[in-house]
Amino acid sequence: MRSIGIIGGGQLGRMTIEESRKYLAHIEVLTPDYPSPASELADAVHIGPLDDYEGVLEFAEELDVISYEIEGVSVEALRELERRGALVMPAAGILAAIRDKSLQKEVLRKAGLPGARFALVEGDAAPEALAAAGAALGGFPLMQKARTGGYDGRGVALLSGPHDERALRCPSYLEERVDFEKELAVVVARSPDGSFAAYPCVEMLFDPRANLCDSVLAPARITAVQRARAAELARACVEALCEESLRSGSPASGLGGVFGVELFLDRSGEILVNEIAPRPHNSGHLSIEACESSQFDQYLRVLLGLPLGSTELLRPAMMVNLFAEPGGAGAKAGTGGQALGGEPVYLGLEEALAIPGVALHLYGKREARPFRKMGHLTALGSTVEEAIERAEAARNCIRIGLR
Amino acid sequence: MRSIGIIGGGQLGRMTIEESRKYLAHIEVLTPDYPSPASELADAVHIGPLDDYEGVLEFAEELDVISYEIEGVSVEALRELERRGALVMPAAGILAAIRDKSLQKEVLRKAGLPGARFALVEGDAAPEALAAAGAALGGFPLMQKARTGGYDGRGVALLSGPHDERALRCPSYLEERVDFEKELAVVVARSPDGSFAAYPCVEMLFDPRANLCDSVLAPARITAVQRARAAELARACVEALCEESLRSGSPASGLGGVFGVELFLDRSGEILVNEIAPRPHNSGHLSIEACESSQFDQYLRVLLGLPLGSTELLRPAMMVNLFAEPGGAGAKAGTGGQALGGEPVYLGLEEALAIPGVALHLYGKREARPFRKMGHLTALGSTVEEAIERAEAARNCIRIGLR
Repeated sequence: MRSIGIIGGGQLGRMTIEESRKYLAHIEVLTPDYPSPASELADAVHIGPLDDYEGVLEFAEELDVISYEIEGVSVEALRELERRGALVMPAAGILAAIRDKSLQKEVLRKAGLPGARFALVEGDAAPEALAAAGAALGGFPLMQKARTGGYDGRGVALLSGPHDERALRCPSYLEERVDFEKELAVVVARSPDGSFAAYPCVEMLFDPRANLCDSVLAPARITAVQRARAAELARACVEALCEESLRSGSPASGLGGVFGVELFLDRSGEILVNEIAPRPHNSGHLSIEACESSQFDQYLRVLLGLPLGSTELLRPAMMVNLFAEPGGAGAKAGTGGQALGGEPVYLGLEEALAIPGVALHLYGKREARPFRKMGHLTALGSTVEEAIERAEAARNCIRIGLR
Repeated sequence: MRSIGIIGGGQLGRMTIEESRKYLAHIEVLTPDYPSPASELADAVHIGPLDDYEGVLEFAEELDVISYEIEGVSVEALRELERRGALVMPAAGILAAIRDKSLQKEVLRKAGLPGARFALVEGDAAPEALAAAGAALGGFPLMQKARTGGYDGRGVALLSGPHDERALRCPSYLEERVDFEKELAVVVARSPDGSFAAYPCVEMLFDPRANLCDSVLAPARITAVQRARAAELARACVEALCEESLRSGSPASGLGGVFGVELFLDRSGEILVNEIAPRPHNSGHLSIEACESSQFDQYLRVLLGLPLGSTELLRPAMMVNLFAEPGGAGAKAGTGGQALGGEPVYLGLEEALAIPGVALHLYGKREARPFRKMGHLTALGSTVEEAIERAEAARNCIRIGLR
């Protein structure tokens, strides 16, 4: 079996390692944080920043395949590894085309994929630059998005005009707001040999308090035609990124991986592409219990050069992210009420696990901070309604406080 | 979460640890062999014999709950731990009543559970002793079974008479041969609070070459009445063992665990009890993919004091044990053709994993020996027939040779 290097030390790496033992895979991680969810289970841990050129090259030296579970990786280092003949999966050219979200949107637009209109903002988004970009889109309100580094509600602002105080002062672009009915996602796996597997389209449900994806429902409550269209778009997105990667000089051997493709269902019933992650995705966590082969199993199959598994949904399912509580015990004296981190305290797990069909996944993060994702739960049901009911009941049992 | 000590370092411990990470469980193992399947993944490894009184006491010192994944553990040490107030699960009294198979049969007989008639053999089974025991059962042929240590076809002999050369010279008993139609098994989980969960009854299929359980099919192809009867008997067996454990002085707090209850379906359609294992069982491996909560998940739930999970079967499934090949490259020169161990070589995994619904579990044993269990595969299907077809196809792809 190939030895695997994963750049990043979070829960995606952790769940990948959990799934890897059955294949006798050897997995090392590069992470700036120790301990971290993945570092506790890895066969070896390298401590260092993810975007350090030399550090990434050094990490990769003895490993057969290099991958990443987070976007903030040095693309230049991955490109250099490819020049040296190393196997990088997904290829550096895919990460490059995803990491800069405006480039990602450009690649998808050129491939004819439907998505919200957008316009680049010059420089670090001074009001004049915002005004110019906004005019190109027909005026405000518009979404402003950071070109890189946005994640879980960070790096996004809704601007009422070019002088809006919420504006991000960084390289960014403006995007039309999509008046959407639902947010959807399709996780797909691709092997370098061109084979594809798409998981059933899921529905992403958001918590308005924190602008965080709160829960995920499978299958999405949309029509069969819409489901097929979502899967088709997801595949086309990944193919477009693969073509861009080849154009940028990355080899075809790296055109594999697991991708989370986020979509909008708009009010007219059309499906638009939102954005793509080149890694296992929060919207695919429920595949651990609900599908024949989980997204982490698929990821390992791709990295190890094994054939893709079946993505068949065994039962309707709902996944709920478990966040540390806002404030609460974490709002410590002397901080002006501002919440700091603390050791996590898990309450109500027994009650939640007493509900039939409920599975729990804790990530082992040593520090809880308000709204930090500390784990997730998945409830299976014989119907979507039963899955929702069980997941909501389980969610209501659990509190993650701070000591 | 409680810290767990597991005595034994084999694949059952390994798969338990694989499943445990989502609960952030801390698991240490005591094993005579290092490396071994479980020791490679455990949070800490203690090297020592399983039946060493002092060694087991020392192992248990800092741990919240002590369990075992193999029967050859020092019962005396477990009893001493219970006297000291430690939590042993399943209780020492349960292991004592299972480890000596003739005591096990006696406990089940007294509880009125149906099983093959048996008679103890005096001493180490000299021909006169065999003759006396045989007479009590109405004459040969009879099965002779070692009172302790039998496993996977070892410790069992079919005797044509008291002078049969195949007789085992050890403490043993004779048992009537059951003219069975099928071998069945039910895995059950019990919590110390008395709650029970039974997995669907499965069918165990044997390879006559090695007298090894070769594959397992779920659900068993029997009537609904027989299925219900099998579950009822399995539960009654565990209850009888729990009562015996209490009588022997073990505390009620240790009356939990996962148990594999092997059964016979005889030619008249009656179900008889064969024997019981106080641990996750080969017949329950398919629960990893096929059931809502796997037998390893249940085991962890019991050890951690969490409620039992759902044992619902999501899909028909067939599990196939993967043994190292007999002889072959392992029959080394100068050994008179006798097969020795060697480094395992796994062939055909890619072909097997290309079959839809097939999952692979390798145990990471460093040495392959003929007929040694090196892993298993599980195939899900939309019908039992499809599961069988896929499992057989996958089995035919894989060879485990010796380097």
